[in-house]
Order: sequence, then C-alpha cells, then structure tokens
Amino acid sequence: MTATDLPGSALVVGCGLIGTSVALALTARGVDVHLRDAVPGVAEVASSIGAGSVEPVTDPDLVVVAVPPTVVPATVLSALQEFPHAVVTDVASVKRPVAAAVAGTPGAERFVGGHPMAGTERSGPTAGSALLFEGRPWAVVPLPESTPEAVALVTAVVSALEAVPTSFAPDEHDEAVALVSHVPHLVSVLTAGLLASAPRAHIDLAGPGLRDVTRIAGSATGMWLQILDSNSAAVTTLLQSLRGDLDRVLDALGAGGDVLTGRLSDVLDAGRAGTQRIPGKHGEVRTESASVFVPVEDRPGVLSQLMSDIGESGVNIEDFRIDHEYGRPVGLAQVEVAADRADHLTSSLTARGWSAYR
Amino acid sequence: MTATDLPGSALVVGCGLIGTSVALALTARGVDVHLRDAVPGVAEVASSIGAGSVEPVTDPDLVVVAVPPTVVPATVLSALQEFPHAVVTDVASVKRPVAAAVAGTPGAERFVGGHPMAGTERSGPTAGSALLFEGRPWAVVPLPESTPEAVALVTAVVSALEAVPTSFAPDEHDEAVALVSHVPHLVSVLTAGLLASAPRAHIDLAGPGLRDVTRIAGSATGMWLQILDSNSAAVTTLLQSLRGDLDRVLDALGAGGDVLTGRLSDVLDAGRAGTQRIPGKHGEVRTESASVFVPVEDRPGVLSQLMSDIGESGVNIEDFRIDHEYGRPVGLAQVEVAADRADHLTSSLTARGWSAYR
Repeated sequence: MTATDLPGSALVVGCGLIGTSVALALTARGVDVHLRDAVPGVAEVASSIGAGSVEPVTDPDLVVVAVPPTVVPATVLSALQEFPHAVVTDVASVKRPVAAAVAGTPGAERFVGGHPMAGTERSGPTAGSALLFEGRPWAVVPLPESTPEAVALVTAVVSALEAVPTSFAPDEHDEAVALVSHVPHLVSVLTAGLLASAPRAHIDLAGPGLRDVTRIAGSATGMWLQILDSNSAAVTTLLQSLRGDLDRVLDALGAGGDVLTGRLSDVLDAGRAGTQRIPGKHGEVRTESASVFVPVEDRPGVLSQLMSDIGESGVNIEDFRIDHEYGRPVGLAQVEVAADRADHLTSSLTARGWSAYR
Repeated sequence: MTATDLPGSALVVGCGLIGTSVALALTARGVDVHLRDAVPGVAEVASSIGAGSVEPVTDPDLVVVAVPPTVVPATVLSALQEFPHAVVTDVASVKRPVAAAVAGTPGAERFVGGHPMAGTERSGPTAGSALLFEGRPWAVVPLPESTPEAVALVTAVVSALEAVPTSFAPDEHDEAVALVSHVPHLVSVLTAGLLASAPRAHIDLAGPGLRDVTRIAGSATGMWLQILDSNSAAVTTLLQSLRGDLDRVLDALGAGGDVLTGRLSDVLDAGRAGTQRIPGKHGEVRTESASVFVPVEDRPGVLSQLMSDIGESGVNIEDFRIDHEYGRPVGLAQVEVAADRADHLTSSLTARGWSAYR
C-alpha cells in the first residue's frame, strides 16, 4: 500500500453514529472493516446494517477510535499498543486532551487526530450513514511527531469519505471549534434560557429571528457536557471576550443618546462584518443575495409546485426557508437568490399566480 | 360606520416599507387612502404604485403614523390635534415613548398604539407589499384612556390586513420585544463580532449552527440604534439577567469536573425548555419532528424534482433548509417532517434515487 491509498483493513472502535458512518463509508469503498464496541451487541447491530465484520482483526492498517470523548485518550493509547503497525486516528470534537495524552508515548508517530464537522440529531449505529461526511469540513490534527505517511493515510481516508480535510495543530483546532461551535451553542442556550420563565404572551410575538438564534439550543444536550469540560480553556477565553463586549453594550445602553449611538454603532458594524466572513456557498466569498417572499398554503404539493415554478424561471436558489405563520394554516417561503435575479423571480412567480413580493 | 367596520378614509403619514404596505393593503380593501411624507417625492412614489392619493384629506377616520421611531411621539400628537375626529395609531417597534408622550393630552382617548411584527431586509416605498402582514403577530397597545371604539377600529384594521392582533400594555409590549427581538439581535451581533478578528482557517470550520445564531446580525443595522435607545430599560434588564447566567457558566467552566457537569447541565436544560415554548407551526405546541437529509446537486431543477418527489411520498414538510456544502458544488437539504413520517420519507426518496438518510 502507498501512503495515499486507502487502508486495506481498518478497525473501528466505537459503533455510535460517527463510528458506524465511517465504517459504512469505508466498507462501501472496499476496505476490510472490523467493528468493536464496549457495549455488548452494539457492534453486531452496526455489522447487521453492513458496516463491517465483528470478527477480531490482528493487524489492521488503520484504527478509527470513535468512542465517547472522555475515554478517547485511553482508547487511543491502548490501540497504539495493541496494533503496533496501525495508524490510529480518532474523531473527538476536542483535540488537546488526546494530543497531550499521546504525545511522547511509544507509537505516537502513528497517531493523527481527526474531527469531522458532521452529525445529526440522532445517535447510535442505526443512525449511521455512509453519506454523513459528504462536503463537510474534517479537521486533521497531527502531533509534532506524526509521520508524513500517517498524515497522508488519514487525509486520504477523509478525502475518500468526501469530506474536506483541513490541517490544524491541537490548540488551534480547539480554539477554532470554541469559536464556531461551542460558544455559539452556549450563547444560543443562554438566550433560549431567558424564555423559560417568560410570560406566554411575550413569546407569542416571536418571529424567525428568535427561532434562528435559539435553534441549536433545542438539540439534544448529549455530549455537550463532556465537550465543554474538555475544552473549557478555549471556551472560557472567548466567553470572557464576549462578556467584555456585553459590558460595553450595557454601558452604552446606560449612557443613552450620542454615546449609545456611537458605541452600539461600532458593535453592530463589527457583528455585520463578522457574518460576512462565514463561508458562503461553495466556500466562496458571499455573493450579494436578496429575498423573495411567497405565502404558501400548508398542504402537500404546494411547495413542489412553487419549486417547479422557480425552476422554470431559470433562477437558481441560494437558500430556501419556510416560516410557518403564527395562528394560520399558511407559511411564508423565503427564497434567497442572487440580488440581480430577485426582480425577475418576483415577476415570474407573480405571472404564474403566486403572491410573490420582495 | 360601526366600530368593527374598516375606516372609510385613512391618512398614512410616512411612506417607508411599513407605511406603504399598510396603505397598499387598505387601498386594496376599499379604504380611501391618502399619503403624506416629510421627504418631498416619497408619497408620490408610494402613490404611483397604487398605495393611495397624495391629495390632502381634511377629516380622515384613521391616521396611521409610520414615521421613524424618534419622531413618532411628536407626529402622533400633531395628528391628534390636526384631525379632531380621527383615531390615530402608529407602528413604532417600541411603545413606551409614544404612550408617555400622548397619555393625558387632549385627544389621547383616540390613540391606540400598534406594532406589526413584520419587515423585510428592504426599505422605502417600492419595497412595500399589501401581503407583508399576512399571518404576522401585530401588537395592539391602547392607553388606559383609549376608547373601546378606537381599540375596535385599530383591531379591525389589523385583522383586515390578515395579521394576528394581540393586546399589550405599553410596558409589557416593550419587555416582550426586548425578549423576542432586541436581546436576541444583540446576542447574535456579539457572537458574530467574535468572528471579525478570528483567523480565516478557524471560520472555515463553521457549520449550520453558527450560521443560524449569527444570521440576524448580518441584516441592515438600519433602525436598530433608535430601537435600542428607546427600549434601553427593558433591554438592559434582560441583558443583565443574561450576564448573570453567563457568569455562572464561566464559574462552572472554571470549576470543571462534577461542578461543571451539574451547573452546565441545568443551563443546557433551561435552554432546551426555552426553545420548546416558542410557538411552532400554526401557533400550536411544537410537534415532535425529525430531519431527513438529502444531498442535492446545485443546479436549477434539482430542488423542484426533490420537492415533487417529497410531495408524491405524501409526507408534509414542516420545515426545509439548504446547507451549501463547504468546498463543493452540492448542497445538503434538510427536510423536517413529523417524527413518525421520517422513515417513510427516507425510504420513499431512496426508492426514487435520492441518497436520503436520517
């Protein structure tokens, strides 16, 4: 096998959503995949849906450790020991603990950490899908002593799973996920928490903005406690920065008038600039887009007809959302298209009988 | 005219997005609408798209004040004086300032405040649409001295515009919008602000969660400074509460281990409980829903085919989103359906050649 080929054989340790999905995808690509799980019967379930074999393996080329975050370091160390020729990777969402545990130990040169930015709200082997990683970022996190061959193998696996590999040092990775995932999650949770004890009538005024901000707070709490515990340093640094900004907002609100205007104007501008740095479609710089709104009746077939009519207008959809209307059986479709196509789409839909407006 | 009929004639003062939309909707319902705007030519533009007449009116039944927030109180007071038989309402997004200015003045019994929870990212008369208020909450905010007839007229107008009227006292309204709109906006802005100076590679790991939380921070800053200034008291109260919760999170992160687990577990649970109080489809209690994921090629017609195939499966769509994939010309459609229909939809789409998974 050359360094950029896929491994001939692999052992997946931990058959939850991620482990089973990796196993399914590798099996689909011809790798001889073996499965192991600490909980009796779980590997068998994964095997039954085609993820691989539960027969023991003696000398795999690759071991993928996909166990719960807190047991990743020990599992990686024991895999390096048990399989002295294997490259070992993991999928934990925080990388410092495993890097610190493995660096300097025998076999550390065969370890390359990993973190696929993928998941669904479901868990367990039956939620696994070989498609889970398509187009998703996947952080590849080598140790200083990782061999180029080990890095190349893990990168080849990530690419074969149709994810997009990006290389990070462990500290840098953990700062990055604190920024793009852990802190936004906590902020969403704190905002949603304000609703818990609010009067019903207040919440009834909610619009799509509140739903957007609080959506991820509604997801299963699952592994969040372990993630936040293991990345508390990077999360704390960013939350303290946010707290400083929040204090400046409170000061400005207290001052009122011109002071408020000047300071909050800076805060609002910084936020807007921040959103423009988030990768848009295809990872390109965001193009200027515009929304066309279309009230739609809430019954099967209506959205299909709308999509069909949009398709016939020749305008490509950048984004599409439905906001279900408060108190009535109708939804408002928000169709995001290139700014210079919005007028054409509006008139084209109007001509086809829709009440479209910008 | 009886109290629950629409007014025979109305004057709309301020022909921006909201004023023009109200004028278009009232004109469409047979009301004799007149238009006025402080900026020369603006009322004429609104009139040219069918919003009403720019001829002066001497004795309108209703005056709708839709001017920028800071000039609402003075404009309402002068309308009550100029038109001694008219019911006067406004559309400002903060209600305490106008209520405080009008209460106890001559004609105050003819004033009933209002606040439609609607808007688009566009502004100006040409962005106006008679459909803008369909199904949206619209707060109706009387003064203690408002007559029942005045309240009934404003409520009738709101209902005729197909919005959903809800009655609030001014203080209560401002606390409610601080909760569902102003504080979430600031939180989104503060989170997005963290991205402004972050390394490019960190932001490239962003997923849909970050996009959700920061989406509204990317909208035009427009009237936000005026809104935050005029509602600083209610916003401050809630932000201080959020700051207390944030401090508790920071304490827990610093403590680590069991203390972290216990305290953050409470925070995450409260957030989840909060999201469950947001009105779902049709204002009902949220039903249990589940996501089906479908990778879709990014070209015209593909979404139309997907929608058509979903339609033929007989499963109704609760929500639909597209997450454009980082680095490749494919998107991931997330189709939200009733939880007990997700498996059927997945197998139905798979049978039609889609790579659907849950």
